[in-house]
Amino acid sequence: MTQVLALTGGVGGAKLAVGLAANLDAEELSVVANTGDDFEHLGLHIAPDLDSVMYALAGLNDSDRGWGVKGESWQAMSALEQLQGETWFRLGDKDLATHLQRSQLLRDGLSLSEATAKLCEALGIPHPLIPMSDQPVRTQILTEQGELAFQHYFVREQCEPSVLGFRFEGIEQAKPSAKLMASLQNPELSVIIICPSNPFVSVDPILKLPGVLSALQKSSAPIIAVSPIVGGLAIKGPAGKMMKELNMPTSAAAVAAYYGDLLDGFVLDNTDSEQCDRISVPCLVTDTIMTDNSKKSQLAQDCLRFAASL
Amino acid sequence: MTQVLALTGGVGGAKLAVGLAANLDAEELSVVANTGDDFEHLGLHIAPDLDSVMYALAGLNDSDRGWGVKGESWQAMSALEQLQGETWFRLGDKDLATHLQRSQLLRDGLSLSEATAKLCEALGIPHPLIPMSDQPVRTQILTEQGELAFQHYFVREQCEPSVLGFRFEGIEQAKPSAKLMASLQNPELSVIIICPSNPFVSVDPILKLPGVLSALQKSSAPIIAVSPIVGGLAIKGPAGKMMKELNMPTSAAAVAAYYGDLLDGFVLDNTDSEQCDRISVPCLVTDTIMTDNSKKSQLAQDCLRFAASL
Repeated sequence: MTQVLALTGGVGGAKLAVGLAANLDAEELSVVANTGDDFEHLGLHIAPDLDSVMYALAGLNDSDRGWGVKGESWQAMSALEQLQGETWFRLGDKDLATHLQRSQLLRDGLSLSEATAKLCEALGIPHPLIPMSDQPVRTQILTEQGELAFQHYFVREQCEPSVLGFRFEGIEQAKPSAKLMASLQNPELSVIIICPSNPFVSVDPILKLPGVLSALQKSSAPIIAVSPIVGGLAIKGPAGKMMKELNMPTSAAAVAAYYGDLLDGFVLDNTDSEQCDRISVPCLVTDTIMTDNSKKSQLAQDCLRFAASL
Repeated sequence: MTQVLALTGGVGGAKLAVGLAANLDAEELSVVANTGDDFEHLGLHIAPDLDSVMYALAGLNDSDRGWGVKGESWQAMSALEQLQGETWFRLGDKDLATHLQRSQLLRDGLSLSEATAKLCEALGIPHPLIPMSDQPVRTQILTEQGELAFQHYFVREQCEPSVLGFRFEGIEQAKPSAKLMASLQNPELSVIIICPSNPFVSVDPILKLPGVLSALQKSSAPIIAVSPIVGGLAIKGPAGKMMKELNMPTSAAAVAAYYGDLLDGFVLDNTDSEQCDRISVPCLVTDTIMTDNSKKSQLAQDCLRFAASL
């Protein structure tokens, strides 16, 4: 049986997760999402990457706006604005229900893994969605304006401040979630796919959890990554801007170099085919821009076939 | 200067509060609301009576539905239902903002009085709205099915269980709010009006706070109550049903008798004029059914004039 482990951030990675889910049975796929950009806001436990993947797997995501729930409304936010509450983080009315229920499940004593499983079950998602850790890891962005909590950088400051580095608060004390470790240590694991997510703030928090990197290195499964950079730009989010500010070339090849030895293969877009000779692992050049469900499914198939060839 | 203190529960009392506010300047009126039906739900501090009065004073209440905010929507609730969360207490999207912001202000260290003042200020309410206490008092309904927390009785069980009595959890440790006591002890106080609210679960929690009854008795201001029972029925809510179950006649006169010596005057509806001779304090018989703003204002004027005559 195929056994696929996908490591993902939010919206970008969620697209490939949807493609994989379209091609694999529930017991063939585990999707592990970053929780470094989770935060407490208005008393709610908000897990943006878990939610992006959950909404996408449930077919509830708003693909026009690019984030959140489709058919969303904003009555609570406009009332909160009238009450002079904090509205920089836009919480839609439907999305609020997710945060209220997750927070309630956590207060009831469930772990984040258990709460996520409950939410996914209620939404009819068959494939396991797993938070990287049940303990809090809080990504801090080191910027020229000082250190900013991830959502303050990402949403409140709209990624404006120039980035100097990253700190994953709590990561030394955090443990990778049991299902992540079980998947990594599964001798039958067929492939580990690093989704086209931000290497610094979506993938690194997962990789830097204690024990994950060595488990990845011990695993006999090939590890492949899909470039989040296409034609010198990030498909979505601040990855490109961050690379520039960190004095890295903004290219697929630079992403491959950043992951370095960890990879057994790299997937990049047709646009960037000329970069293959600068990449030290086998490359798959294909269409990586997932503008619809059939392209998500096609890229997933391409990745699975490529990994099987390694 | 006129100095009016109104003691109120939720929707019924809020109507008279609106009438009083239409006739009195901000410094002439203090509205004190019951908090015995406050509760924590989904991690939110919900204060139904404070909110009913606040929405009414801000002109935001839904007078057709009879509770909550006008123009309300229910997207969060329907999403929460899909997520298999608790939906027996219907939280509208706009209403949610109030609970989120109040809860945040309390987490920020404000007292309930301070948080209420902030919310009212944001909504442009000039008259002070004061919670009866900054400490938790939680009304428990003793029923034939056992003890029920107020909202479980009122909303979840739809007031079905037969009532045997009441318990105000925490009331011995609670203090009346500073502004309630200041108003009660104000030698210039002109009148204390007990609004047409449920005597058992809206007014009693206020009266039974330590020190309130003796302050009421010491006050030289006349104390009048407006009957919540008209023609043998409660205008709204379970007051009538409760009186029956407690083996009291369901009548305005029985309400007057329940308040007993505390009162200096009683206001009842034209419908019940024949009951005056069974009431041991001076009575005002007038139209107490406040179906629109002019009737709210008229009843307020009637009450003020009546009190001034005592």
